Amino acid sequence: MNDHFEAPVEAYEPPYYVAVFTTARTPDQSGYSETAARMEDLVKDVPGFLGMDQAHTPGGLSITVGYFRDADALTEWRSNAEHRAAQKRGQAEWYQSYTLHVAKVERSHGFTRAQAPQSPAAG
Amino acid sequence: MNDHFEAPVEAYEPPYYVAVFTTARTPDQSGYSETAARMEDLVKDVPGFLGMDQAHTPGGLSITVGYFRDADALTEWRSNAEHRAAQKRGQAEWYQSYTLHVAKVERSHGFTRAQAPQSPAAG
Repeated sequence: MNDHFEAPVEAYEPPYYVAVFTTARTPDQSGYSETAARMEDLVKDVPGFLGMDQAHTPGGLSITVGYFRDADALTEWRSNAEHRAAQKRGQAEWYQSYTLHVAKVERSHGFTRAQAPQSPAAG
Repeated sequence: MNDHFEAPVEAYEPPYYVAVFTTARTPDQSGYSETAARMEDLVKDVPGFLGMDQAHTPGGLSITVGYFRDADALTEWRSNAEHRAAQKRGQAEWYQSYTLHVAKVERSHGFTRAQAPQSPAAG
């Protein structure tokens, strides 16, 4: 065990955008992980991309949250040709259902536990 | 195996609000699941609550997305006394770190695969 925990992307100063992509997957996930990794690489090149958090319940829902500085960044990502091809393949093969919510952040905050909590002094 | 898949909450007509709560948990999760279940029950009583999606990567991040009709619904949930007590306990015990992003949805869409895909006709 180590002291490093995976941490969420930081809470930026609003306004910025979130894209919340929630999916239920089909049983056949052939090629999914390679495409997902490629999309993660691609989105990092979008100017204004701030970061991404992901969680996946085995056998259940997956949620990906992308953070973007402004609407232009989202437009660029949405119109990326390779991204659009991946979306089409997702609808054809990987997703039973999904939702996408694009929203402008009005407030945010973060919490981080102290790295090395001190024990109460003895006696 | 059955034909029922867990599906994301539907994509409502904007505007509405999302609250994206992303957490990294501590090793000690005593009492967490009972409190989480209680919060899920409580939030359903908030007028304007539209639904909630959750995903949890074992050993990794958890993401909960709550959907609310308007800012008043979020204010009511945020000021709920039992919810506030749970937040305090979460900071003290369950969360290594977290972020909360409250955002107004500007566009959304959903996709659902046809329930019974037809096989291509033979020959």
